[in-house]
Amino acid sequence: MVTTRLDLDRIRAAREVIDPIFLDTPLYQPDALGRELGCAVSVKLETANPVRSFKGRGTELVASELAAQGRTAAVCASAGNLGQALAWSGRRRGIDVTVVASRGAPAAKLERIRALGAELELVDGDFEMARARAVDIADERGVRRVEDSLDIETCEGAATIGLELASDASSVDTVLIALGGGAMATGVGYVLKTLSPGVEVICVQPHGAPAMTRSWHERRVVTTDSYDTIADGVAGRYPIPEVLDDLLQVADDAVLVHEASIVTGMRLLLERAGLVVEPSAALGVAAILEDRDRFAGRHVATIVCGSNVDLDAYHRWVGA
Amino acid sequence: MVTTRLDLDRIRAAREVIDPIFLDTPLYQPDALGRELGCAVSVKLETANPVRSFKGRGTELVASELAAQGRTAAVCASAGNLGQALAWSGRRRGIDVTVVASRGAPAAKLERIRALGAELELVDGDFEMARARAVDIADERGVRRVEDSLDIETCEGAATIGLELASDASSVDTVLIALGGGAMATGVGYVLKTLSPGVEVICVQPHGAPAMTRSWHERRVVTTDSYDTIADGVAGRYPIPEVLDDLLQVADDAVLVHEASIVTGMRLLLERAGLVVEPSAALGVAAILEDRDRFAGRHVATIVCGSNVDLDAYHRWVGA
Repeated sequence: MVTTRLDLDRIRAAREVIDPIFLDTPLYQPDALGRELGCAVSVKLETANPVRSFKGRGTELVASELAAQGRTAAVCASAGNLGQALAWSGRRRGIDVTVVASRGAPAAKLERIRALGAELELVDGDFEMARARAVDIADERGVRRVEDSLDIETCEGAATIGLELASDASSVDTVLIALGGGAMATGVGYVLKTLSPGVEVICVQPHGAPAMTRSWHERRVVTTDSYDTIADGVAGRYPIPEVLDDLLQVADDAVLVHEASIVTGMRLLLERAGLVVEPSAALGVAAILEDRDRFAGRHVATIVCGSNVDLDAYHRWVGA
Repeated sequence: MVTTRLDLDRIRAAREVIDPIFLDTPLYQPDALGRELGCAVSVKLETANPVRSFKGRGTELVASELAAQGRTAAVCASAGNLGQALAWSGRRRGIDVTVVASRGAPAAKLERIRALGAELELVDGDFEMARARAVDIADERGVRRVEDSLDIETCEGAATIGLELASDASSVDTVLIALGGGAMATGVGYVLKTLSPGVEVICVQPHGAPAMTRSWHERRVVTTDSYDTIADGVAGRYPIPEVLDDLLQVADDAVLVHEASIVTGMRLLLERAGLVVEPSAALGVAAILEDRDRFAGRHVATIVCGSNVDLDAYHRWVGA
């Protein structure tokens, strides 16, 4: 029995609350990608929705809860995808959303947060500075702060991906999950370890932003002074203790990958599967590239978690 | 009552035969695309499956029928997508598939047909030459020839897209459908006109391959001596009389678009929705671009029907 903060019944019930546009996303094998990687690769595509990432699954839960409580405002720090998703979910329920982000976040993400009608506040410094500023704003205004990975709704929303994998990916040996704050990894990992305990759960993070992975290996929170990676969606320095505790229960391994592998992963997803993805969504493919023997002949599923990328940077990276 | 060769009960039953991997595809509004085009735009994404086009819906029906009849071989002419789909559906059922294609078809399509284990025969000349050669092969070998758009399974398979649109796109005013041989247009159009008669059905074809559109307007088969378009998936010269008859029952309009609009459509789908598509899949957006006033303020759905494109050509077209 896997014991985390998450609850399987609540996760099942979440499917009734989340807009169906975020649920039952495509899961399929682009053969050409698998041939290139030497294993069967299934992609779970989380980008074909209005916010182009999986984050809507969690923000739908948060926003419906806020609406039920009669709340009319919320604030979150975001690397860019949570902010878009909260803006989308909030807009439909009359909730004013404020997003705090780093000035260095991808322009495409910032632009889409604004386009969805959210108030966007930019901070100098990295994601952790945005997190600190969101705390202040929530205190000043007395509004709910949505904290990615700490707030159980963000984990349990992401966990609905796990329900879909558990029911549709019966032949999968391993699931590769991008690791940032940990909402997706703990959510999907919890459901898999509960419903499909034989499936291996591997988290993938960049060497350039390794705090949570190091923490998982050392079984205690390890912070870093900075991060440096193109995978902006998973970059942070301060792992949340409660999330680490959960991750220790559900992950079989946590690996780090190099920037060059992330770039190659993005290129292969374009060339072999026709998918434009943001760097964080290529972490799974990067992990296969860095350890081909480990995955050879196996059936590996990877969650393509977002496609919000600045195209100029994308073209520079993939050389196309 | 709309009367065509198609049958609603058979189309509903088809959902039980078609591999779920091709069904219930994403339907969503990429806001940024709509803002650019001046109307609400929903995309029905038919590319997130193992053959990267909608054609699997029809070939699943064909192949399961062949298997039920104990047949072990089939041949088809293809611009590239039908061949991949028939190869995929046939492989799973032990059916040897031969695909006849023009030597000028996109290399990516030809390569994937081979990779799926089909026998590929290339002909000099265009798609109509491949069609003629497929007739010969079927006669020589005594095997079933699968004729796109004429064979009712190809239309009724595509028509399952219409079921999904009719149930999920209640607020849609207009559906834009790429028009080639007519399987998708008659299939989707038939279901919409039967279940959602208020939805306008508009077919879109390139000026460079206008035979079916001209035929629709003149209400008789009009052939052309040649075609010249980057939208290889919809290029043909000889409309099939039975398909034209059906199309006359279900289409409200058929419009022609210029190559430059197709290219701009592909670029906008990339820049505003993060989607890499083949030219035929951009015909709907091209139609909006060429007649913005007609669609202003309306809710338009467009079927993104395929993403099998040679990346070199793609980059050349979209300038990225």
